[in-house]
Amino acid sequence: MRHAPGSLPAPFPPKKQVANSLKSLADGTHNIMTIGFHMVIQHKAPPLIGISLGPWDASFTALKEQRQCVLTVPSVEMAEVVVDIGNCSKDDEDLKETSKWDRFGLNALPAEKVKAPLVGGAHVIANIECVVKDTKMVASYGMWVLKPVKAWINPNMKPGEGGKMFHHRGDGTFVVDGEVLDLKDRMVKWQEF
Amino acid sequence: MRHAPGSLPAPFPPKKQVANSLKSLADGTHNIMTIGFHMVIQHKAPPLIGISLGPWDASFTALKEQRQCVLTVPSVEMAEVVVDIGNCSKDDEDLKETSKWDRFGLNALPAEKVKAPLVGGAHVIANIECVVKDTKMVASYGMWVLKPVKAWINPNMKPGEGGKMFHHRGDGTFVVDGEVLDLKDRMVKWQEF
Repeated sequence: MRHAPGSLPAPFPPKKQVANSLKSLADGTHNIMTIGFHMVIQHKAPPLIGISLGPWDASFTALKEQRQCVLTVPSVEMAEVVVDIGNCSKDDEDLKETSKWDRFGLNALPAEKVKAPLVGGAHVIANIECVVKDTKMVASYGMWVLKPVKAWINPNMKPGEGGKMFHHRGDGTFVVDGEVLDLKDRMVKWQEF
Repeated sequence: MRHAPGSLPAPFPPKKQVANSLKSLADGTHNIMTIGFHMVIQHKAPPLIGISLGPWDASFTALKEQRQCVLTVPSVEMAEVVVDIGNCSKDDEDLKETSKWDRFGLNALPAEKVKAPLVGGAHVIANIECVVKDTKMVASYGMWVLKPVKAWINPNMKPGEGGKMFHHRGDGTFVVDGEVLDLKDRMVKWQEF
């Protein structure tokens, strides 16, 4: 994640904060980072997600070696923790003896299809277990194509029914989900999907 | 843009709706479409944006030939128009004689660095003139890397100060920007940006 307010004369599209859990829960090497740049690349056949994670991130080597991770979507109650996770590194001196999981009281739960853990807790909206599908854009842009292989939703935290996502505006401010707009009736062209 | 509610067991991250203006204003061939999948790839050196636009879109050929476009960020007052733009195609029978610009009363304004027009109007938040930077992922995923070359902001519609973005949840419902959260003080690691 890079924060560069003002580097473009117009605001960038805000991006929801996502936690990225990597490496292995089983051997205690699991780490976690905050990601602000991500997108849906395609909905199906198969669904794919793009994330930006470059050599400037301590987790880069882990993703390269392991080729799998968990994307966690936090609700706004976790905003401060998510920002704090994004503002320290496992390579920091004061994180040599403890992990970010311990420091921030995160609950690591075993995933089903990948070695990295899910993030548990009342304010987690969803966990998406992913494997790396394509690395063609990694060298140039730190851009990874991930294929979700298993997804978990917190039934009490569905977006619009409890969970509220928050989106980074690039300058340390975030916009929180507000009202929901139902325009299903106008989706005439895409009803078959 | 593809809408495939329910194709993944968890909700995909919602995406702000963006209008994509293509081809030339000068010769009247300009078209416009709605895009739901996009991300910031990097903030600078240079700033880059990724969008998903595939051969299933009528604008695919235009972007391939012209290698430039304008991304327009609409405010929520335009939600119905933006959805309607995304639910018709310039190839539709009833759009042979008129354009989407005319049908939806959109105001096409000349851009500075590209041939495609800006979208004018009181409820437009921003226009970003872009050129195509990389097409390596187009064949596999319809994924284009765009380089913004000029950006315009509506001073009355800055996000959080008038403009409200709206984000597609993948099923015809949208979440509208709510309150703004200021966590600048916690951005200790990234202050240099």
